[in-house]
Amino acid sequence: NVFMALCPVYMGGTFRVLVGVTGSVAALKLPLLVSQLLELPGVEVRVVSTEHAHHFYNPAEISVKVYTDKDEWETCVVRAWESSRPLLFCPAMNTAMWNHPITARQIASLKDFGYVEIPCIAKKLVCGDEGLFVCEVGILVSKPTSEYGRN
Amino acid sequence: NVFMALCPVYMGGTFRVLVGVTGSVAALKLPLLVSQLLELPGVEVRVVSTEHAHHFYNPAEISVKVYTDKDEWETCVVRAWESSRPLLFCPAMNTAMWNHPITARQIASLKDFGYVEIPCIAKKLVCGDEGLFVCEVGILVSKPTSEYGRN
Amino acid sequence: NVFMALCPVYMGGTFRVLVGVTGSVAALKLPLLVSQLLELPGVEVRVVSTEHAHHFYNPAEISVKVYTDKDEWETCVVRAWESSRPLLFCPAMNTAMWNHPITARQIASLKDFGYVEIPCIAKKLVCGDEGLFVCEVGILVSKPTSEYGRN
Repeated sequence: NVFMALCPVYMGGTFRVLVGVTGSVAALKLPLLVSQLLELPGVEVRVVSTEHAHHFYNPAEISVKVYTDKDEWETCVVRAWESSRPLLFCPAMNTAMWNHPITARQIASLKDFGYVEIPCIAKKLVCGDEGLFVCEVGILVSKPTSEYGRN
Repeated sequence: NVFMALCPVYMGGTFRVLVGVTGSVAALKLPLLVSQLLELPGVEVRVVSTEHAHHFYNPAEISVKVYTDKDEWETCVVRAWESSRPLLFCPAMNTAMWNHPITARQIASLKDFGYVEIPCIAKKLVCGDEGLFVCEVGILVSKPTSEYGRN
Repeated sequence: NVFMALCPVYMGGTFRVLVGVTGSVAALKLPLLVSQLLELPGVEVRVVSTEHAHHFYNPAEISVKVYTDKDEWETCVVRAWESSRPLLFCPAMNTAMWNHPITARQIASLKDFGYVEIPCIAKKLVCGDEGLFVCEVGILVSKPTSEYGRN
């Protein structure tokens, strides 16, 4: 239920951001996220998406290349990610899933790998639950450039 | 190779039992289990089943709603299960699988999540092996109402 | 990304080797491995292969029975492998994947189960990377008969 992993890399004057997205209701926000990232100067965006994520957004609404994960490709990208490059992850799930004891362990494992958590915030969910949700798109957009900036 | 997870919840005078079943030979017993559960007074039953489990029983033989797990739905139900509600699991596999060191770890993890194990018993298996098998259907049926009863 | 697991068993005067192969570039070497194993006296070979592995070799080039893993069959074989019988595994991946912290944990788990690692060697990979690769086919062929020999 990790919604998105952002992998920003600063190369040759350009910020290259790979957005990984999985089948969570939070994937509804992908089109907004991509368009806001593209408003930043010198940012290039690519998306890698599980097929389940397509239930929540229309690839035609995304103005950048979307690679679809047929053969666990998304997992492979993460596995092969160079540890020196930043990887930000944003969990998104309802309160019941969040409270399952496996969640804390999974998040601890991801942090242990050196990944950076963008903590989620409580919000009214699509299913009606008061629940945890991915952080605001604004925070997602500001993170890569602020923390891994060009200075 | 967990065969079944029973999730009994007592709501509004009715015992609602969700039976989760996976692709194990033990799934042969599902029709018997469901019919015996339905004989209990005030019990409602629903089934969530992996597609592999359909090799071992005919959904047409089940008189209640069977949700089929296309998109790892069964895993999601368990992940989102409220920890205050009981979840009983019944491992079922042959002796060689049972002896694999990962089995003890997996069962310990499930118990650690607060799930209740219904230990399996040794039986002659379909494959001819003397092996471990899920407990008798009678025990499965009595557990939810006896331990999480209406008193 | 474990490329191959070899499960040699000595029964009734014959060495029976089950080769498990997964979707790694290293699976290119499967036809060579099988033909070299068959040159050894008194060796019988069977292959169990994931569907992804078929991207890297042509089953028609393999002169022995190839079981294809439709329903996680390969995982089941490993799970049900008798712990008294040898299981050799040969990891194969590029350097970035190898450096991921999960790799060491996974290999430690496999060894903890009593499986024998055939360590990989650095090689020029198909993708152009200088990377880690499965050991030479010659080593793979010699291992089963030398360590679990007929003497």
